[in-house]
Amino acid sequence: MKRLRLSMAAAGFCIAAALTGADQPSRDPSHNDGPHFDANGELLLPANYREWVFLSSGLGMNYGPLAAEAGDGNPRFDNVFASPAAYRYFLDTGRWPDKTLLLLEVRAAQSKGSINNGGHFQSDLVGVEAEVKDESRFPGKWAFFGFGRGTSGKQIPTTASCYSCHAANGAVDNTFVQFYPTLLTVAKAKGTFK
Amino acid sequence: MKRLRLSMAAAGFCIAAALTGADQPSRDPSHNDGPHFDANGELLLPANYREWVFLSSGLGMNYGPLAAEAGDGNPRFDNVFASPAAYRYFLDTGRWPDKTLLLLEVRAAQSKGSINNGGHFQSDLVGVEAEVKDESRFPGKWAFFGFGRGTSGKQIPTTASCYSCHAANGAVDNTFVQFYPTLLTVAKAKGTFK
Repeated sequence: MKRLRLSMAAAGFCIAAALTGADQPSRDPSHNDGPHFDANGELLLPANYREWVFLSSGLGMNYGPLAAEAGDGNPRFDNVFASPAAYRYFLDTGRWPDKTLLLLEVRAAQSKGSINNGGHFQSDLVGVEAEVKDESRFPGKWAFFGFGRGTSGKQIPTTASCYSCHAANGAVDNTFVQFYPTLLTVAKAKGTFK
Repeated sequence: MKRLRLSMAAAGFCIAAALTGADQPSRDPSHNDGPHFDANGELLLPANYREWVFLSSGLGMNYGPLAAEAGDGNPRFDNVFASPAAYRYFLDTGRWPDKTLLLLEVRAAQSKGSINNGGHFQSDLVGVEAEVKDESRFPGKWAFFGFGRGTSGKQIPTTASCYSCHAANGAVDNTFVQFYPTLLTVAKAKGTFK
């Protein structure tokens, strides 16, 4: 289980292992919005997710016994992106629609570099996870997937603590909107904030 | 000058004062991409900038005598967004086109909240700044604007240190691509990284 939790992060996703992909943005339009699965049930990483809507980032977040730190004691950044259609639906309703796809990208943090002499900035990709809402596909409506640095992700077993923790602590539906400041405002205005 | 530098941040913008606006996303399509100015020469804040392309974030970054901290000693987050058209041009060329608009959003950081018990996550908006490339409008091609929390921004005087520092230290053109990990990869591949 430890490999599944390099990060207990802003969105509470659990980063999976297998670091295989490349750290480069892409504009391949083939995977836009919503979840797409391959024949093995693996979730395909949207090639253009870095152009999706940024929800927020955290540094070194943790809320369990494990800290979101690399082996060298350095905290990591987490960036959360939402599919544009799901984001716009949320702005209108304060709720996530079916087929919502949220991606959690974990990156290493650097402190010394260029002219910076304090604080932390983001560097290499550590891995990506997804939280997916697909009401007809998953009995619990939501599921988590780990990509590592690859382009397709296996589902994280439903026995993993991310499932029970999100269900118990998500501010809106199964998600940690309490950590996404602009959506938090929307959810409170729409009366959907738990 | 101190009011102009609440943050010496990821993008090196200098956050201006006057905190007047609301902390809410918007989908007003009237200000999409590129810079728009009012009759007084003030830059209009794109209402939908939170749907623009996220470049990176930093926490507590500083590279000068002033630290990016609030009065209570808490570091702040900086999120940088690029206009989609400028971002796509950069992916193709490793350069910024004329009319590039980059926005730096500064947010307070929280450590304790909800189930999080460590690290930092983002909360209230502190202010927004812009870096604009407009070759016919500005003798130095690039200019900086401070919005505070308002919706229109005054140009920061060209005597401010952000101008000389960006010119001297920007990894690509006048910008701190050294702190934007995905664009750094592109700039190195395209041979535009200084």
